[in-house]
Amino acid sequence: MIFLRRLKTAFMWKKTTTLLLAFVVVVLGFKLFIYDASCVTTVLTERENAGIPEKELKALKQAWLLEHQKKNANAGHESHDHMVDEPPNGNAQQVVSPIECLINDNYTVQCLKSSNSDEMVYMPFEFLEKYFEVYGKMKHYDGYDRFEFLQSNVKVVYKPEQPYTYHGAFMNFDSYNVEIRERVKCVSGVYGVPVSTQWDANGYFYPIQISQYGMSHYSKNLFQKPPKRNVYEDGQISSQVRWKATNRYCHYESILDKETDSHVIKFETPETIPLGNGVTMVLGNTVEHELSFDIKFTANGSLSVILDTNEKSKQYTIHYITNSALIDYDGHSSVFYGIGPSTNWRHISRDLVTDIRKGLGMIRRKKNKKIKISIQKVSKIILRGSGLIDNITLATYDHMAHFKDACNWMVANLDMASGGWKMSISRVLDEFEVIKPGWVSAMAQGQGLSMLSRAYYIYKEEQYLEAMAKALLPFSIPSKEGGCRAKFLDKFVWYEEYPTTPSSFVLNGFMYSLIGLYDFKSLLEDKFAISEDNNLPSKTVGVVDIQATYKTVKKLFDDGMVSLKSMLPLYDGGTRTFYDLRHFAFRKPPMIARWDYHTTHLSQLALFATISSDPIFEKYFNSWQGYMNGKVANHN
Amino acid sequence: MIFLRRLKTAFMWKKTTTLLLAFVVVVLGFKLFIYDASCVTTVLTERENAGIPEKELKALKQAWLLEHQKKNANAGHESHDHMVDEPPNGNAQQVVSPIECLINDNYTVQCLKSSNSDEMVYMPFEFLEKYFEVYGKMKHYDGYDRFEFLQSNVKVVYKPEQPYTYHGAFMNFDSYNVEIRERVKCVSGVYGVPVSTQWDANGYFYPIQISQYGMSHYSKNLFQKPPKRNVYEDGQISSQVRWKATNRYCHYESILDKETDSHVIKFETPETIPLGNGVTMVLGNTVEHELSFDIKFTANGSLSVILDTNEKSKQYTIHYITNSALIDYDGHSSVFYGIGPSTNWRHISRDLVTDIRKGLGMIRRKKNKKIKISIQKVSKIILRGSGLIDNITLATYDHMAHFKDACNWMVANLDMASGGWKMSISRVLDEFEVIKPGWVSAMAQGQGLSMLSRAYYIYKEEQYLEAMAKALLPFSIPSKEGGCRAKFLDKFVWYEEYPTTPSSFVLNGFMYSLIGLYDFKSLLEDKFAISEDNNLPSKTVGVVDIQATYKTVKKLFDDGMVSLKSMLPLYDGGTRTFYDLRHFAFRKPPMIARWDYHTTHLSQLALFATISSDPIFEKYFNSWQGYMNGKVANHN
Repeated sequence: MIFLRRLKTAFMWKKTTTLLLAFVVVVLGFKLFIYDASCVTTVLTERENAGIPEKELKALKQAWLLEHQKKNANAGHESHDHMVDEPPNGNAQQVVSPIECLINDNYTVQCLKSSNSDEMVYMPFEFLEKYFEVYGKMKHYDGYDRFEFLQSNVKVVYKPEQPYTYHGAFMNFDSYNVEIRERVKCVSGVYGVPVSTQWDANGYFYPIQISQYGMSHYSKNLFQKPPKRNVYEDGQISSQVRWKATNRYCHYESILDKETDSHVIKFETPETIPLGNGVTMVLGNTVEHELSFDIKFTANGSLSVILDTNEKSKQYTIHYITNSALIDYDGHSSVFYGIGPSTNWRHISRDLVTDIRKGLGMIRRKKNKKIKISIQKVSKIILRGSGLIDNITLATYDHMAHFKDACNWMVANLDMASGGWKMSISRVLDEFEVIKPGWVSAMAQGQGLSMLSRAYYIYKEEQYLEAMAKALLPFSIPSKEGGCRAKFLDKFVWYEEYPTTPSSFVLNGFMYSLIGLYDFKSLLEDKFAISEDNNLPSKTVGVVDIQATYKTVKKLFDDGMVSLKSMLPLYDGGTRTFYDLRHFAFRKPPMIARWDYHTTHLSQLALFATISSDPIFEKYFNSWQGYMNGKVANHN
Repeated sequence: MIFLRRLKTAFMWKKTTTLLLAFVVVVLGFKLFIYDASCVTTVLTERENAGIPEKELKALKQAWLLEHQKKNANAGHESHDHMVDEPPNGNAQQVVSPIECLINDNYTVQCLKSSNSDEMVYMPFEFLEKYFEVYGKMKHYDGYDRFEFLQSNVKVVYKPEQPYTYHGAFMNFDSYNVEIRERVKCVSGVYGVPVSTQWDANGYFYPIQISQYGMSHYSKNLFQKPPKRNVYEDGQISSQVRWKATNRYCHYESILDKETDSHVIKFETPETIPLGNGVTMVLGNTVEHELSFDIKFTANGSLSVILDTNEKSKQYTIHYITNSALIDYDGHSSVFYGIGPSTNWRHISRDLVTDIRKGLGMIRRKKNKKIKISIQKVSKIILRGSGLIDNITLATYDHMAHFKDACNWMVANLDMASGGWKMSISRVLDEFEVIKPGWVSAMAQGQGLSMLSRAYYIYKEEQYLEAMAKALLPFSIPSKEGGCRAKFLDKFVWYEEYPTTPSSFVLNGFMYSLIGLYDFKSLLEDKFAISEDNNLPSKTVGVVDIQATYKTVKKLFDDGMVSLKSMLPLYDGGTRTFYDLRHFAFRKPPMIARWDYHTTHLSQLALFATISSDPIFEKYFNSWQGYMNGKVANHN
């Protein structure tokens, strides 16, 4: 068999351009007569080695091998288009044998065995990826392919460089894009906040999502350069040449609006004209897609936007109509958003890209497939019905408008009796009892506090302060009684993301709630020069007793931090983190946090590390960060 | 490059015996003139494809491939000496390229890439074994090699078929061989129990090890077939022909011993004669290695055993001497064990293999290297000094003698004041405060209870009952006050293997303590027809108030079981189990249980599943068993 092995080795050589040579050399050695191909086949099948003495044959092969090896070595430097597939310093191709690999005495997987030098076994990544739930992908850069192996499918979490503040960016939310998520049906035209379909396909407002939407825009606004804004109409600049009426029953004029003391455009068209007709203004903007305007309808009406898209240059129209419909699509070229009666002045700001995509998604929606259409030109707007409009603008973004919409929704939707942002949907969590609509989440309360702290910082409106003071109530009321307070073994206070029975102790939601408490506490300290040791005379802002509120929020935060520091170890699986402690409640294996929750834990720890002097946060950040790279806890 | 790739594919085929054919076919296609080899080289290097039109060349290659493939398929069934290396249905050899694999964006590992059909990446087991801490080994059986991949380095734990009883085998201890462990210095000649060197190289008695030694022999005794016994002398069988005296000052005779009312051998030699001289009896046994005898020295003396070994037929002598030395070795051919004065009748039973190995290990000892010497013949024994001897026996084993020695040591070494088997060594556990000598372990208490329950079952001696009743005391005394009781968050009672500050909550030690309590409780229920609902009139055995003791042990057990069931989830890491809860105390990553502790957990759960109706034990057994096969907990 030695001979055969050698021969096989020969075929390992990568470059084959010179193999022809080899054939000829061999044939010379054989000194065979030349038949036609089929004839030779027969002869050789019958006479092994073609009758050549084995010794001679060996020598010939050896000569051929050497020759081929040399050619190959030379060719290596020439054939660049082939070399590009090789890593730097890569070895020559190898011959390997398949070997059966018996996995845990249970089933087999085909592996490879190399017997080049030390016997080495290679296992297929196809198996490893499922068995260990790891990730891998071929990547090409720097001129060659390599395989990237990853323990986790998420990006590294970096420690923030600056200490966290209640008025700065919220964690890494500037990288969030809440509204484009699959589980967001659309951004409501009435309220300017996202509508979730996560746990109810009909769509519902979810305070947590709304806060995250608001805070993502707030955070983006801090990091992005100022938006480019094109004001097409503010009622004063004599741009009326851009306006055009569909017919003589449609009117427009610039007037001074007494309510706002501002020049605005007054428009009036018959209500009976079809959508897409009325008073038109050409925009022709190919760059900015964030359309905003101030509007006040005096009768039913609509504002339509005509968009040129990349879809075979097809035009679509988005109609913003004074009704209560959420979103609709005619399956052809029109998307509809209800904006409510809008009979009071309001600022509407719409991301046209999101709006068109969500609209088309109504029919074309497939799971995990986002509509990829893009806008080539915001062509024109058309006003129908009667009303006033001002400040028609196309901008690169209008984050603060979205932030404010989110804040206002939160204020308007706080249940004044309980202080809770009550959830309108049921929540089913595995073996837990179904949580019926009307429940309160500490995470929603916390995220609301974080957002409204920023709102008060920016806008200084008492309504935000009042909402926040109210929103503390559920933290002191047990989950079973409509609040979100739990206790771990009668010892550690916990604020529950889900007020389950028994308690579930979801970690990330708890940490969000603590961040919210921290934000509100910091705001009070900052804006009212209040502190633990600083017993100022009682002060009231709106209906808020600042001193008492501060005392409450501080105690809630401090108690929660004690629990967090004490209970963090219970979420450490040694290889991953746990999402919650349901395993403790139900005496079953833990619910491991999927990697994106794991990174949420990390981002939160990183935040706490900047506001707490306790080394625990840095410590856990480091070891949990390690789990993402396969560095697991020690064993004895 | 398509052409080159195809050509490469061609060379992957395993059987090469028919390649000669291929060469010829190719050459025919080329219709080249035949030069001498060096000349052809030049021509072909200069003229790529040898001037053949690419289309024609492709067709030729294709024909050749098909032919080769056919040949190859046929050859597969012929070449048996090659096939033997292949797994069943193994594929042909493959050509693979090395590919750089970037691990977690941090370092690179050389992997293989196969481009046979789908591109597949293979990772070297050498890397995987370190990265994932898994195990693998080439194994040859059924006529071929395969690679065995294992998640863990321990054997599967089987659920016991029979319910656990306090008088049956203890868990899987029948498979234990305590005395041969590296950390056992030897079995004491004075007490017949092992001496540990685990935490003190000088050697010390460790109650846990002694109980495990006793229970392993007890359990072996239940499972092994009755020992083969050769009685060489019982004082009555006229076997005195076997005896021989070294000189005329050495005497022996059979007498009737009044104390035991038995015929025994009386021996007397001058104390001044050298070791290895005196009264000799030839044994010449090549099969049994467990030497036992009843002996009573009336003056100093020794019993020496001469052994033929496999070490170039070298003879060694083990001297059992009436002194207090533990073990010694002269570096040449003599091993010494002190057996104490032995002035009262005692039964001594020695595993000569263990004794000689531990003896030689005194000098030759290297870490992790056990002495492998074996005995070929127990040649003879030599008595020196004055005394009486009876029942000189060589047997396959004498497990119950070892069990009884262990029981007696435990009774004799129970601290009567505290009820604790006090530890004579310090214990250093990572970040915990050093535990100073004199500490008590719930595990020792529990293992003691388990062993003595069996002892009382077998021997019905009150001393065992009294020791057990006393041994309950530390379970009610906090660790800080010299007991072993802890509490988790003021809620769950725990019996500590190590009475650390803060509490460490070692799981396996706690479960052992519960098993001990269960054994004692079961013994009382069984032997005294006592039960929870059965208030018999007060009964005293020895100094033990049976009713009160039962009440105590039952409460300790029940409370402990509540804790166990509640806290088991806290030891579940989702991929492994935790050894203890030190991470909770020190706010750090958990101490993962190494696989043999993991299997101890499993064996213990399996035991509890047979004595408790609570499904938790079966449930955790199954999921934790799964971790050994890489079946980890779910993530969300």
